[in-house]
Amino acid sequence: MTIHTISPAPQAPAVPTRGKLRPLGLGDVRITGGFWGERQAVNGSNTLDHIGGRLETEGWLPNFDLAASGGLPAGRRGREFSDSEIYKYLEGLAWEIGRTDDVALEQRFRDVVARVAPAQEEDGYLNTMFGRRGQGARWSDLEWGHELYCLGHLFQAAVARERTRPGADDGLLGIARRAADLVCDEFGIEGRDAVCGHAEIEVGLAELARVTGDRRYLAQARLFVERHGRGTLRDIEWGRKYYQDDLPVREATVLRGHAVRANYLSAGAMDVAVDTGDNELQKALRRQWERTVARRTYITGGQGSHHQDEAFGEDWELPPDRAYSETCAGIGSIMFTWRLLLAGADPRHADLIERTLFNVVATSPAPDGRSFYYANTLHQRVPGVEADADGTSPRASSSLRAPWFEVSCCPPNVARTLASLDAYIATADSDGVQLHQYAPSTVRTTLDDGRMVGFDVETEYPANGSVTITHTTDADQPWTLSVRIPSWAAGSSLRIVTADFVQQRPVEPGMVEIRHAFRAGDVVHLELPMAPRVTAPDARIDAVRGCVAIERGPEVLALESTDLGPAGVDDVGLVALAPGAEPIERDGRVWVTVMRVPVVDARWPYGEAVEGADASAAEVPLVPYHEWAERGPSTMRVWIPVAG
Amino acid sequence: MTIHTISPAPQAPAVPTRGKLRPLGLGDVRITGGFWGERQAVNGSNTLDHIGGRLETEGWLPNFDLAASGGLPAGRRGREFSDSEIYKYLEGLAWEIGRTDDVALEQRFRDVVARVAPAQEEDGYLNTMFGRRGQGARWSDLEWGHELYCLGHLFQAAVARERTRPGADDGLLGIARRAADLVCDEFGIEGRDAVCGHAEIEVGLAELARVTGDRRYLAQARLFVERHGRGTLRDIEWGRKYYQDDLPVREATVLRGHAVRANYLSAGAMDVAVDTGDNELQKALRRQWERTVARRTYITGGQGSHHQDEAFGEDWELPPDRAYSETCAGIGSIMFTWRLLLAGADPRHADLIERTLFNVVATSPAPDGRSFYYANTLHQRVPGVEADADGTSPRASSSLRAPWFEVSCCPPNVARTLASLDAYIATADSDGVQLHQYAPSTVRTTLDDGRMVGFDVETEYPANGSVTITHTTDADQPWTLSVRIPSWAAGSSLRIVTADFVQQRPVEPGMVEIRHAFRAGDVVHLELPMAPRVTAPDARIDAVRGCVAIERGPEVLALESTDLGPAGVDDVGLVALAPGAEPIERDGRVWVTVMRVPVVDARWPYGEAVEGADASAAEVPLVPYHEWAERGPSTMRVWIPVAG
Repeated sequence: MTIHTISPAPQAPAVPTRGKLRPLGLGDVRITGGFWGERQAVNGSNTLDHIGGRLETEGWLPNFDLAASGGLPAGRRGREFSDSEIYKYLEGLAWEIGRTDDVALEQRFRDVVARVAPAQEEDGYLNTMFGRRGQGARWSDLEWGHELYCLGHLFQAAVARERTRPGADDGLLGIARRAADLVCDEFGIEGRDAVCGHAEIEVGLAELARVTGDRRYLAQARLFVERHGRGTLRDIEWGRKYYQDDLPVREATVLRGHAVRANYLSAGAMDVAVDTGDNELQKALRRQWERTVARRTYITGGQGSHHQDEAFGEDWELPPDRAYSETCAGIGSIMFTWRLLLAGADPRHADLIERTLFNVVATSPAPDGRSFYYANTLHQRVPGVEADADGTSPRASSSLRAPWFEVSCCPPNVARTLASLDAYIATADSDGVQLHQYAPSTVRTTLDDGRMVGFDVETEYPANGSVTITHTTDADQPWTLSVRIPSWAAGSSLRIVTADFVQQRPVEPGMVEIRHAFRAGDVVHLELPMAPRVTAPDARIDAVRGCVAIERGPEVLALESTDLGPAGVDDVGLVALAPGAEPIERDGRVWVTVMRVPVVDARWPYGEAVEGADASAAEVPLVPYHEWAERGPSTMRVWIPVAG
Repeated sequence: MTIHTISPAPQAPAVPTRGKLRPLGLGDVRITGGFWGERQAVNGSNTLDHIGGRLETEGWLPNFDLAASGGLPAGRRGREFSDSEIYKYLEGLAWEIGRTDDVALEQRFRDVVARVAPAQEEDGYLNTMFGRRGQGARWSDLEWGHELYCLGHLFQAAVARERTRPGADDGLLGIARRAADLVCDEFGIEGRDAVCGHAEIEVGLAELARVTGDRRYLAQARLFVERHGRGTLRDIEWGRKYYQDDLPVREATVLRGHAVRANYLSAGAMDVAVDTGDNELQKALRRQWERTVARRTYITGGQGSHHQDEAFGEDWELPPDRAYSETCAGIGSIMFTWRLLLAGADPRHADLIERTLFNVVATSPAPDGRSFYYANTLHQRVPGVEADADGTSPRASSSLRAPWFEVSCCPPNVARTLASLDAYIATADSDGVQLHQYAPSTVRTTLDDGRMVGFDVETEYPANGSVTITHTTDADQPWTLSVRIPSWAAGSSLRIVTADFVQQRPVEPGMVEIRHAFRAGDVVHLELPMAPRVTAPDARIDAVRGCVAIERGPEVLALESTDLGPAGVDDVGLVALAPGAEPIERDGRVWVTVMRVPVVDARWPYGEAVEGADASAAEVPLVPYHEWAERGPSTMRVWIPVAG
């Protein structure tokens, strides 16, 4: 465990004070194109613009103007947590400005902060929903009021800004500090023995402590983490586990309850555990991650099986057709998992992040970045109805992406994640650099001993599995470049080409370390096997018994009715994989042989098994899951029954 | 289609003015013991007492006192629909008084009515939640206010009372009529073009029309039925289908949305269709029932796959572990299905009623009749926690029956159903009597031509499949006794023993008609095959692919961890049926051979299928599903995976 003393701090969303790895921020890593670069470009142009527009027209940003002008509560619009969307938007803007120096976005950022600032009260309190005449009293509804949750997002926005524009004169950091000071006064050891019904303040405070050096914020984050599970929140229909108030964090064995809350709390608890050297807490969080990943996570990396409470189900309860797999839960899982990776350097954490990025985060936004999935089902039985481009969906679950939601947490969450994605590509330790995710990118950083090292990454991944790493700096002494071979990539090979030698060797999943005094122009070439894979589920996942999924590289594939002709996925009997037939690649797509198995339409569907007439077999192409429904309403399956 | 002109009207919960069959009420049929008789006894003593007590202590009945004394809204307790529970309780009391002439219950009934009466306003309005200073205005929240829903239950209570105690001087019928007159004024053709967000007023009004002969109520019921599906209610998160306001009843093809609402509406629509001679509407309802039963109904007869909105899922979406299968939805299904049976005489309707009675209605109450399932899951993964005997469960879904719920619709619904169950046993037509359900009972009625016919039924069904029908009247002319052979009872046999002849013959599922001039002492003996059956699901029900259920007679069986030793159903690898092994009966229980298939605990549960080490096989007994968790917290499965 190394204590990090690098200055300036990385421009990254999580900068622990210690850990096996330290993040490389936007100053050190830039994505230069490819799968993620394209999405970042759309995010920077369309998505941030779209969100900014909706925050105005929905009235959620104007709520701040009303707060300053005395127009609350009469004119207030939006749910109790709508302030948080402005803060996530600000965080997204901050990262995007850090990435691109965009002058218009900088102006927009300052304009929004200038409208937020006057809504803050003398003593630092900031929320448009509470505390005024005609509103609920401050902190009077900790179960559902989301006041501390909103502030946590404010702090993350201020942290993003301070890391990308240290000392900027926009005032956001001051706003955050005044609010954080109030929180510490109000909820400190001598104050209210309480937590927020939606975790987020913990990660916000811990990061604010890192940016400001004020350990009081860290102590307060720790207090909040330790107070969870002591039943200070009211029991509700879904039980206190909904907001992780059923068990102390260090006693829990698995994530449970509301999946976003659970992951946000875990991320904040990891920050606390790492920065206070609390190994017992870290161990508890690792244990929870292990069981959650082994028993409560979809093949896409998505989490949350219940629509009702947006929550984890029990172990093995992973229905594809009722998968909630909220986009924000995927993002929360990345936040938590990234902190585990930084602390422990286990490549399985980067594996899950990659899986979740490609199959949850990339699935949510439409190609134009102006509509989104809130929930990410793995099986759609009935095609949806086209959403109104200007409309607001009251429904989180739909077979079509919607431009906005009554609860619209996901769009700005996607925006801030994509805008800061460069910071999840690589890390450093005292001896070198670790490349965790493959994207066209430039990496250039200073090692602990002051040596500058750098390389460029060229790849069309995941279109193919070739990754070329070309060194751009000269080293006199050896250092270690580590590259992650994903867990699915057995049979990968590595080829190193330097002025002095060429070396080729097979490599197995895990981190592969290459120690060498690399010179500019030295090349490390990686070849990951991208043949489609047939994946079977654990026999205890009842909902997909008798099914397999097809994966290719980091992408989960799906069978979409659009490729099946008018009959669709579920309309004519059962569409099932021909047993034993292997998927093949042709014309840039993956094809499988499916059989339409006629099923006798009984008046009562339970009885002796009825054999249908002869099935007909046909080859059909699959789509990457993240592309589903991009061609219009459709039915879809990730898990495909195997015939016979 | 016969128009019924029998007088006095049967003491039964639904008395259509026409139909192929007419109900035989409590005056004609009495259950005398056995499976249902025992439950009726517990219901009459414990359950009605339990409910009456809780209605007091929860404040739901005292709300009416407060209404009269001016103590509303300040002192009001309970949800917006709590009035309805008092009315369902009154209905249950009315049937029980009709069955037993219990003096204490009669006094109780009158006491409750005497407390309800003063809460009614001058113009007939009656609701403790709306219309007073400080409350919402009358009819201001048709989506969620449940005012008309509550009145529907009031009307059903008044109908039950009038049918069992015609002309009683308690005043309930007058209360109902005044309220119904107000509803007709307010919501008539010239009035508000609106429906209630929870159907129930339709069936209440139609039945009130039958009891009073006032066709205005029937016309109003029809108006409400026709107004559904015209979007007069607000769109909500779950869509307008939640309250069946998405499609007109006569255009719909399947039940959808909230399962209780859907069934109550269908029952009311059937009443309207039958009493107005609207064959098109009847046909539409029949079509909806067919598809709902073929594609959206659990093997238990339960309906509703979604916890979130207590609603039907899509076709084939029938997850056992997230089955909602609300007790009230089962009762609603019986109401709807019974009306279809009376109209059309199709024994498949009685089949579904039997299935639902044994596997939903009998499952809900504990043996002591003082705790209940609200939801009826078909797969419990984790044992629950013992409920507090005095507590109120905020949770509808639990692995244990609870004494009361925040939304406590199910206990009084069970009570009124059990108290009126005699009326679902048999029917009559112009030529004879149809015996639909097998229970120890006496049947004695007058045919249309004035002949008195009667018989006693002796049986231990479903413990065994022997049913002995002994005639108690002498007929000079032949009449037809029809007996239902359940759809699962292929291989049944019939033996007729009269003074003149003995006849024995095999009979197939469906209605078997025996035409004879029966003399007292003549015996019809029925032998239904009760060997356990292995039942496979339609291949399109994804959630139970690769599983079978075991049934015996009308009972669905379940595998409960209590019978598996400490390891439970899902704890050690996978418990699966040995392929090809047939269930056997021994010591009064059904046994199956299961294998504990070890499953390798992977850190990531998706990959190549991993074969476990050798499985061990053992015989384990099953329980009737309706008995599950009666021996304490357990895990449980109806659908059992088949190994290999």
